[in-house]
Amino acid sequence: MNANQGRSPAMQHFASDNYAGICPEALAALLAANDGHVRSYGDDEWTLRVADRLRELFETDCDVYFVFNGTAANSLALAALCQPYHSVICHQLAHVDTDECGAPQFFSNGATLLAVAGEQGKLTPEAIVEVVTRRSDIHYPKPKVVTLTQATEVGTVYRPDELRAIADTARAHGLRVHMDGARFANAVAGLGLSPAEVSWRAGVDVLCFGGTKMGLPVGEAVVFFDRKLSDDFSYRCKQAGQLASKMRFLSAPWLGILENGAWLRHAAHANAMARRLAAGLAEGTGLPALFPVQANGVFVRLPGRIEAGLRARGWLFYNFIAAGGARFMCGWDTAPETVDRLLADIRELAAESA
Amino acid sequence: MNANQGRSPAMQHFASDNYAGICPEALAALLAANDGHVRSYGDDEWTLRVADRLRELFETDCDVYFVFNGTAANSLALAALCQPYHSVICHQLAHVDTDECGAPQFFSNGATLLAVAGEQGKLTPEAIVEVVTRRSDIHYPKPKVVTLTQATEVGTVYRPDELRAIADTARAHGLRVHMDGARFANAVAGLGLSPAEVSWRAGVDVLCFGGTKMGLPVGEAVVFFDRKLSDDFSYRCKQAGQLASKMRFLSAPWLGILENGAWLRHAAHANAMARRLAAGLAEGTGLPALFPVQANGVFVRLPGRIEAGLRARGWLFYNFIAAGGARFMCGWDTAPETVDRLLADIRELAAESA
Amino acid sequence: MNANQGRSPAMQHFASDNYAGICPEALAALLAANDGHVRSYGDDEWTLRVADRLRELFETDCDVYFVFNGTAANSLALAALCQPYHSVICHQLAHVDTDECGAPQFFSNGATLLAVAGEQGKLTPEAIVEVVTRRSDIHYPKPKVVTLTQATEVGTVYRPDELRAIADTARAHGLRVHMDGARFANAVAGLGLSPAEVSWRAGVDVLCFGGTKMGLPVGEAVVFFDRKLSDDFSYRCKQAGQLASKMRFLSAPWLGILENGAWLRHAAHANAMARRLAAGLAEGTGLPALFPVQANGVFVRLPGRIEAGLRARGWLFYNFIAAGGARFMCGWDTAPETVDRLLADIRELAAESA
Amino acid sequence: MNANQGRSPAMQHFASDNYAGICPEALAALLAANDGHVRSYGDDEWTLRVADRLRELFETDCDVYFVFNGTAANSLALAALCQPYHSVICHQLAHVDTDECGAPQFFSNGATLLAVAGEQGKLTPEAIVEVVTRRSDIHYPKPKVVTLTQATEVGTVYRPDELRAIADTARAHGLRVHMDGARFANAVAGLGLSPAEVSWRAGVDVLCFGGTKMGLPVGEAVVFFDRKLSDDFSYRCKQAGQLASKMRFLSAPWLGILENGAWLRHAAHANAMARRLAAGLAEGTGLPALFPVQANGVFVRLPGRIEAGLRARGWLFYNFIAAGGARFMCGWDTAPETVDRLLADIRELAAESA
Repeated sequence: MNANQGRSPAMQHFASDNYAGICPEALAALLAANDGHVRSYGDDEWTLRVADRLRELFETDCDVYFVFNGTAANSLALAALCQPYHSVICHQLAHVDTDECGAPQFFSNGATLLAVAGEQGKLTPEAIVEVVTRRSDIHYPKPKVVTLTQATEVGTVYRPDELRAIADTARAHGLRVHMDGARFANAVAGLGLSPAEVSWRAGVDVLCFGGTKMGLPVGEAVVFFDRKLSDDFSYRCKQAGQLASKMRFLSAPWLGILENGAWLRHAAHANAMARRLAAGLAEGTGLPALFPVQANGVFVRLPGRIEAGLRARGWLFYNFIAAGGARFMCGWDTAPETVDRLLADIRELAAESA
Repeated sequence: MNANQGRSPAMQHFASDNYAGICPEALAALLAANDGHVRSYGDDEWTLRVADRLRELFETDCDVYFVFNGTAANSLALAALCQPYHSVICHQLAHVDTDECGAPQFFSNGATLLAVAGEQGKLTPEAIVEVVTRRSDIHYPKPKVVTLTQATEVGTVYRPDELRAIADTARAHGLRVHMDGARFANAVAGLGLSPAEVSWRAGVDVLCFGGTKMGLPVGEAVVFFDRKLSDDFSYRCKQAGQLASKMRFLSAPWLGILENGAWLRHAAHANAMARRLAAGLAEGTGLPALFPVQANGVFVRLPGRIEAGLRARGWLFYNFIAAGGARFMCGWDTAPETVDRLLADIRELAAESA
Repeated sequence: MNANQGRSPAMQHFASDNYAGICPEALAALLAANDGHVRSYGDDEWTLRVADRLRELFETDCDVYFVFNGTAANSLALAALCQPYHSVICHQLAHVDTDECGAPQFFSNGATLLAVAGEQGKLTPEAIVEVVTRRSDIHYPKPKVVTLTQATEVGTVYRPDELRAIADTARAHGLRVHMDGARFANAVAGLGLSPAEVSWRAGVDVLCFGGTKMGLPVGEAVVFFDRKLSDDFSYRCKQAGQLASKMRFLSAPWLGILENGAWLRHAAHANAMARRLAAGLAEGTGLPALFPVQANGVFVRLPGRIEAGLRARGWLFYNFIAAGGARFMCGWDTAPETVDRLLADIRELAAESA
Repeated sequence: MNANQGRSPAMQHFASDNYAGICPEALAALLAANDGHVRSYGDDEWTLRVADRLRELFETDCDVYFVFNGTAANSLALAALCQPYHSVICHQLAHVDTDECGAPQFFSNGATLLAVAGEQGKLTPEAIVEVVTRRSDIHYPKPKVVTLTQATEVGTVYRPDELRAIADTARAHGLRVHMDGARFANAVAGLGLSPAEVSWRAGVDVLCFGGTKMGLPVGEAVVFFDRKLSDDFSYRCKQAGQLASKMRFLSAPWLGILENGAWLRHAAHANAMARRLAAGLAEGTGLPALFPVQANGVFVRLPGRIEAGLRARGWLFYNFIAAGGARFMCGWDTAPETVDRLLADIRELAAESA
C-alpha cells in the first residue's frame, strides 16, 4: 500500500518535516533523562530547567507549558484567549483552520475561525480590520484573537515590522495575538533575528513553539509572554489530556536541542535544503517557486506527468491544492543528496515530457 | 524544593509507577524505529504491526488506537460511548472521577459521573442496579456506561466472574462497559489469566490499555472489542489533539514490550515487589495491608510519626486519604533492595516510636 | 436611539417577520390554556394534543419536541445528527452559519459548518458532491449532514424535486438531511403543496418548524421524521436549557394556529404582501427583485439616497450585504396599506433622486 | 394516564409552583405588549424599561439579561464565572446538581459541581472551607464559585448574616458567589427584607431571579451585580439559544408584576399558604414539617398509606427522597380552600390508618 515499497527503507521524502525522526541532540538528552525514578507531571528537574532555558532564549519572564502536539498547543492557547462566542481571525491557509479537524472549535467549545485571504500566506492589518469591522451585532461571534503562523503554511515568514503592524491593529481592536510556531525555528533561522524579535517584541501574546518538526519525538511548548493569560493554564492542560505523566521525556529533548544551539542549526539546515531545491528547480527545470523560499518549504506547480512520475519513483509529497501546487518540505535531516536526487528525477521527467 | 535533595539521584520511590523511566525493551524498539523518514499520523509499519500484535494478544479482531495519556484514553473512550446528557457509573475511588480534573466531562461536553461505593475499590452489580434505577426522569442524566478500573485504584483486581456479573447487569440496563486499564498488565499478571479472559470475554466493550506504567515513555492504547463503537474514532482523536504526528515513537515501544512478553514480566515483577512489601510490613511491623495485594500497590495505615519519618528520610509516596492510608506503588524497575530499604526504615521508625 | 421616534407606535416595519406580535388564534389558545394547575415539562394535554396534530399535519408518525427558539431548534437538531468531529454542509447564506453566533458549534461541541455557494440561496447536489469529495483525510471534519433552509434566506423555495435530488445525493454520501424551517409555513404556502411533500416525502430527516415567525409568542417545533434520530432527544433539550416548565404556553399557541388552518392563511398573506411589494417596486420604481419572490421576503438593490431616505422616514429594514441588497420581510400582520405606504415613499424618494 | 382524570380540571396541586399559570398582572402586561411591530432581540422599550425597573428594585446599577428558563439562567451564569477546569461548590440538594440533567456541565463545557452536606438545605462557611482546602493539586478541578439557592430546595431561607458569612468565606478563597433565585421572591417575602439586602449587599455577585414560579409564562432574569462579570454575556446568551426574538413577551410580563408590587404579594401569599399547610399538618395530624417553613414549600414524612391515599384521591405532589419526605409547594394562586381540602384529606386518611 505504500508507494515506496521496494526502495531503500532509508529513502527520504518531502511530504512533511514530521517524517524525520529524533535528532541526535534530542535523543541524547532523552536517554540521559531515562535514569531512575523522577517525579511525574512536570515536577522534575528537566522540565524546570528547560522552562528556564526558554525564558533565557526569549529574554523575558514568560510562562512555559509542554503539551503533546501542535493541534493541542494551538487549540489550548486559543481556548485560553477566547470564549465560545468569540471569533479568531486567521489566514485562509492557516493550519488551525484547514488541518486540525475542528480542534480549535472543540477545545474552545465553539469559537469561530474567520478565515481571510492574504498574499504569500500572510495576514495583513487591512484584512484584519475588514473582518473585525464587518459585523458588530450579537448574532455574529465577536472577534477576540488574531492567529498567525510563523513560518507560514507556504514557507514565507513575517518580518518584525509586519508582525508589529498586525499586533498594533489587533490591539487597537481589542484582539490578542497568537502565533502558531510549528516552524518557528525555521522562521527565526530564515530571518536571522532573535526569537524575541520575532515574537513578543513584535507584539505576540502567546507562541506555540513547535518541537516535533525541530527533531523532537513528541511535544510542543506553549509560551505565554503575557503571563496574565496563562491563569490556571496547567489545569486546562490536565483536563484536556495534555499533561504528560512522564513529563521528562517531553521536556528533556528540548534541553538537548536548546543547550547547544542545535535547534537553530537544524532549522537553518532545513532552510538551506529548501533553497537548494528551489534553486535547482528554477535553474534546471524552469519551475519557479510559487512563494519566496524563506523557511523550509518549496511550493511549485508541477506538470501532471512530472508529478505522476515522481510518485511512480516512490517520492512522497503533498499536493497543497489551496496553495496552488505541490509542497516539498525539508527537515532537519534532509540530505543534500536527497535534494539532488529529487532534482535529477524532476529533470529527467521534464526531459521525457518535453 | 525536593524532599530528596542530597540523596542519591537514583533513589527509587513508591509515589507512583509513573516515576519509573522507559524499560529496556521499549527503549530498544524506540531506537530501532528512529531510522529515516517514516509516514506520519500512524500510517507507518510500526503502528500497523503493533495493532496486529494487540489483536493477537487479545485473540480477537479489535480496533486499536494510540493516544498520548490515560486521561485522554479514558475520556475519549467514554465520550465515544455516551452523549452529554448521559451518565457514567463509576466507583467512588475511580481515577476518572477523582484525578482527571473533569476530563471525562470536558471530552464528552458534560456527561455526568455517578460515583458509587463498593468494597475493595470494586463496583458491584447491586450498586449499579441501585444507581441505575434510582431516577428515570428527564431531569437526571440517563445512565449509559459502566466504567471500572482493572487493577483497581486500591490494588485489587476483578476476577472474570465479577466482571461478567457486572457486564451482564450493565447489558440488562442498556449500559456499555468501559475498562480503565492503566494497570491492566498488573491485573493480568495478578490473575494469571489471558488478556481476553480479563476483558472482552468477560463482557468489556472498550479497554484503555495503559502503556506508560508498563515502562513506555508515553502513550496508551484504546482497544475497542465492539468495533461498532469505534466509528470515526480516529477523527475524534485527531480533533481532540491526540493524534501523534510521529506516531512511530508511540507505537514502536509497544512492539518492544509485546513481542517478547516483557509487558507481562515487568508487571509480574512489580506485583511481586508489592507482595514483598506487604509481607514485610505485616511480619516486621504489624502493619497490615488495607486491601488484598493483587497487583502492584500496597495500602497501609501508617502511624503519623512513621509517615513523617519516612518523608524525612526522603521517601516519596502518596497519602490516599479516600482509601484510608498511605499508598506504595511498585514499578517495573522497583528493586527488591528498594523494598527492603523501605521496610528497614519503617521498622526503625516503628521501633523509635514504640 | 430609535429611528422611528415621533412616529406612530403602531407603525409597521419590514426588518423582520419577528417584529410582529402574537396572532389572534395563537393568543386565544394561550389564554384558553391559562386555566388552573397543569403538569409541567410537557406532560400536559395541550402538548400531547399539538404533537398529535403535527403528526396529522405531516401525515406520518413523527417525533415532535418544542423548544424556545430557532437557534436552539437548529443547533440541537444538528447536534443530534453529528459528532464534534463531523461537518455540516450549508449554503453560504444559511442563517445557521451567518446569524447564530456559533450556536451549532457550541451545541455540538465543535462541529464544522462548510458553507458553499449556490444560486438563489439554494444548495445543489453538485455543490454538495464537490465539498463532500474535496477531502477525505482525518485532518478535516467528516461530512455528516446537509442542512437547507426552506424558505431560503433570500425568499426562494426548494421544490420537491430539488429537495429530492439533494436528499438522494446526501444519502449516497452517508449524510443526513436537516431543514431549517423558520419560514417553513411560507414555503408550504408558496408552493401550494402539502407539508409532507415539502419535507419527509422529499427526503428530509429532521425539520425545525418555525413557530415564532408564524405568529407565536415564542417557540419552535423540532420534528423528527426518522424517529431513530430522536433517541433521548428530550434529555438533550433538558440539558441544553430548552425544556419549558410551563410547556403549555409554548404548545397551546401551536394548537391555536394549527386547528383551523390559521398557520397557512397567515403565511399565504405574508407571501402575498411580499409579492405586492415586489410588483410595486418593479412597476413603480424600476427596482427589480434580486430573487424570485416565492415566500415572504423581497430583496432589492436600493440606491443609497433612497435607502437613506427610507430610514429618515422611520422605516426599519436590514441591509443583507451578502445577498446584495436591502431585505424587506412581510409578516402575518403586514397590512396592504403598509406595503403601499412603503412603495409610495420609495417612489417619492426615487423621484427626488432622479 | 393522569391520576386526576375524572376530577375537576381546575383542581389545584402541590407538585410544583410551576403548575400554576400566568398571574393576572403578568398577563395584562403581555397583552399590552402585543401591539404592532416591535424591534426584536431585546432592543425594545419593554425590555429596556424592565431592566431599569430591576435596577431600581435592587437599588444598584446591575446588568440584567432575560433568558428562557432557570436551567439556562443558572448554567449560563455559572459558565460566565468559571472555566471548564474549575469547580462550583453547591449544597447536595441543590437543583443545579440534582435536577438539571448536567446542564451546568454542558454550558460550561465540563465544570465540576462539588456537592456538600448542610443542615436545612444550606451551605455553611465551614463546609465550603472544607471542600476548598481538601485538594489543591492539578488533578482536581480548582474551586471558583459558590452557588446557593435562595429560598433553598427545602423551603428554608438564608438570612443576610448567613449569606455574608458565606460570601466572605468565598471571597477569602477566591470564589465568586452565585445565587439560584428560582424562588427569590419567596425568600424576600419570607425574610421581610429588601431584595438588595438578600443579594448583593450580602455579597452575591450574580443572581438568577426566577420569573416562572412568580407567575410569568416563561423566563428568568440573570442579574449581574458585579458588572465586570457580564462581559459579552449577551453573546453567550445568543450562542446558547437563549436570546428570544420576540423578547417583549419575556420582558413585559416582568413589568406587569414589578410595577405594582404583585411579585412580592404573590410570593407572600404562597408563603402564607405553606404556613397554613404546615400549621394544619402539625395541629391536625401530628405530622411536623421536616424543615422550618420560611418560603412556599412544606416537607413532611408521610406514612405510606396516607401518601397512597392522597394519590388515589388525585393529589399530585413529589416525593423528595433526598430531603426525606413528601414535598408540597404552594404557588401564587394556591387557594386557602385547596390547602384546607388537602388537610382534610390527610386527616381522613390518618384516621383511617389509625
